[in-house]
Amino acid sequence: MTRRAALAGAAAAGIGAGIGRVVDAPVASADADPDSSTEAVSFHGPRQAGIATPQQSHLAFAAFDVTASSRQTLRRLLQQWTAAAAALTAGREYAPDGSKQRRGPSDPGEAVGLPPAQLTLTFGFGPTLFETGGRDRFGLAHLRPAPLEPLPAFPGELLDPARSGGDLCVQACANDPQVAFHAIHLLARIAGEGASLRWVQRGFWPAGGPNRPTPRNLLGFKDGTANIRGGDEAAMNRFVWVQPSDRPTWMHEGSYLVVRRIEIMLESWDPLPLAEQERAIGRHKRSGAPLGARRERDLLDLHATDAHGNPVIPLDAHARVASPAGNAGQRILRRGYSYSDGSRPGPADRGGHQIDSGLFFIAFVRDPQRQFVPLQRRLATHDALSMFTVHTASAVFACPPGTGRDGFIGERLFT
Amino acid sequence: MTRRAALAGAAAAGIGAGIGRVVDAPVASADADPDSSTEAVSFHGPRQAGIATPQQSHLAFAAFDVTASSRQTLRRLLQQWTAAAAALTAGREYAPDGSKQRRGPSDPGEAVGLPPAQLTLTFGFGPTLFETGGRDRFGLAHLRPAPLEPLPAFPGELLDPARSGGDLCVQACANDPQVAFHAIHLLARIAGEGASLRWVQRGFWPAGGPNRPTPRNLLGFKDGTANIRGGDEAAMNRFVWVQPSDRPTWMHEGSYLVVRRIEIMLESWDPLPLAEQERAIGRHKRSGAPLGARRERDLLDLHATDAHGNPVIPLDAHARVASPAGNAGQRILRRGYSYSDGSRPGPADRGGHQIDSGLFFIAFVRDPQRQFVPLQRRLATHDALSMFTVHTASAVFACPPGTGRDGFIGERLFT
Repeated sequence: MTRRAALAGAAAAGIGAGIGRVVDAPVASADADPDSSTEAVSFHGPRQAGIATPQQSHLAFAAFDVTASSRQTLRRLLQQWTAAAAALTAGREYAPDGSKQRRGPSDPGEAVGLPPAQLTLTFGFGPTLFETGGRDRFGLAHLRPAPLEPLPAFPGELLDPARSGGDLCVQACANDPQVAFHAIHLLARIAGEGASLRWVQRGFWPAGGPNRPTPRNLLGFKDGTANIRGGDEAAMNRFVWVQPSDRPTWMHEGSYLVVRRIEIMLESWDPLPLAEQERAIGRHKRSGAPLGARRERDLLDLHATDAHGNPVIPLDAHARVASPAGNAGQRILRRGYSYSDGSRPGPADRGGHQIDSGLFFIAFVRDPQRQFVPLQRRLATHDALSMFTVHTASAVFACPPGTGRDGFIGERLFT
Repeated sequence: MTRRAALAGAAAAGIGAGIGRVVDAPVASADADPDSSTEAVSFHGPRQAGIATPQQSHLAFAAFDVTASSRQTLRRLLQQWTAAAAALTAGREYAPDGSKQRRGPSDPGEAVGLPPAQLTLTFGFGPTLFETGGRDRFGLAHLRPAPLEPLPAFPGELLDPARSGGDLCVQACANDPQVAFHAIHLLARIAGEGASLRWVQRGFWPAGGPNRPTPRNLLGFKDGTANIRGGDEAAMNRFVWVQPSDRPTWMHEGSYLVVRRIEIMLESWDPLPLAEQERAIGRHKRSGAPLGARRERDLLDLHATDAHGNPVIPLDAHARVASPAGNAGQRILRRGYSYSDGSRPGPADRGGHQIDSGLFFIAFVRDPQRQFVPLQRRLATHDALSMFTVHTASAVFACPPGTGRDGFIGERLFT
């Protein structure tokens, strides 16, 4: 029974406060139709959802450390998480054996009455799951993908180890923050004694899609104009999905997930004159058009020069430094979220507190060493934006392929 | 020009990515109609919006300390905030003089292209604005309302002073988290050298209203069943709005705002068997009905006893201890939001981290000393729920009446 059906049953029996109109909205087919924002996204399939899926409005991301030492416990945890994910993404309550649990209700319940809200749950394995300090904890060391190395240090970063890394991760995305929160809450509860929560990050992102304006980040600029579209199979196969020719074979149809918590120093960015903000980005703020062009999707012409022979797109503009042309043609699928986590102490010369916010950068790539590492090396040293940002957390995970109704996430590691 | 009109203009000119369907949705009249969730709520009026307004889905709450010492600077800040609030709640960009600013764009821009989303901005004055350590900083000490005293200490609380108190507060509520964030971001920027940010709290709450189920809190229980409705004028006048017979007269049509950050120890609550959770609340989890009743809105019968003569609603049930019957008939308007702020270290006997989440309790009352303080005293010592929660922050503010198009928030303090 779905949460909706449970509610409908309750309403039919004269119990509860009735059904909201959103919950009752007719099912829409197009992803861009706001009416589809409450519907379910299928969890099962050859690839995990939450990668090519059009980006939902809310994120709850959690990393875990496996505390159990047995391979069997890890396997059982992945099986339980898979069963829970299938239920939650369909809008059902988690009820592993249909009976009440002695140690509290099996589902904490805050999503009862809420629609599926396009919840996707995407699981990943960190480098430490395969080997920690030379120890092969679960007999998986020989299966560790070569591209799954801890990221190297980059200039200027100030990483907080408590917010970085992790043996396992879950990316919960939904169009309702309570649905995304509930998923992480429930999965953390299921983890029980087998794994313990390491860190959590929530985020938000305006609804996008073909009939909506490109969302803006907290710099106030449109973000994602040149991004890979999840529906672009050719680009997805080339840059995002692990291919049959790649090793290890258990990662085929999987992808690698890179996260970077990028704090934006708004107290320095906001006072920057508009023209300087636009030169730092390489695009106009209002339209999103490349400097020197008129429309958002006009060509980013890196060779254009002004009357004095100077480049129209400055050499240190973010759009130039991040462009495929400057990175051996490499592209990445960005799927990040803005965050705002209260306040933090401001710079010493100003005192008081500042808003603690920025971009929780998420990228999916076919090979982080070839795609993300060289790109981030360039950005850290050449990007004008790096004056206004600081990377405060980092992690990389291997996201295995999806699974069918009888399998579980990561099953190929245990055959 | 509204943000929407700006966008429509851009689209008509062939610039930008077009207009999303939500933005174009026909204007709906009923508050419960989801189509109205993108519309504007009027900022001007005899009472501030954001109190009787049906609760929006997202909160960004900020407290500030005034750093300027001049009464004139404080007055100018309130005038600038009022002008900005009028623009933002109407979905317009903030453009104080229509020209570009030397010190960066006047509006940081991340809400461009987003609808008003029922944004309300509600301003309040803390006790310290009127007097700090015996100092009358702004010549306002004689205007301090008697009910605006710092809250007394309550048993069991563990308050973080850095997240508590403040000279000024702004409650930003909207149906889009980016719209709420943008408002706080812009108001903090305007505060400039006159006031500095003290703390920020974000929150979320499922959409409610007459045609939707009562929202659930992170305990998994329906929350708000017996709350005052904003449209209930009699109850609002009796319990929420400051009346002509109350003192000081400048607070007439205003209200007092109490905030408490209430951390929920989910690691203790979740394993509690369902029946014990229901006894702690005094209601059934799924239906929201009082224990012993069948429907959510059935009478909470505090006198009912079971076959053994024991009370059906336990003596320490939250619903009993918080009920008007146990509090001299007093009621409060609750308008709080769930929060989830990453993770925190877990209890020493478990290690690892736990989800840091709970309820950012917000209540509006006519007199906090008569309505909130005795209620919280009872809850802190008698409520079964207090075993699973800890109050980690606290503040109280006087929210002045609203203002007309030529005035500003708090104007009566400066006449």
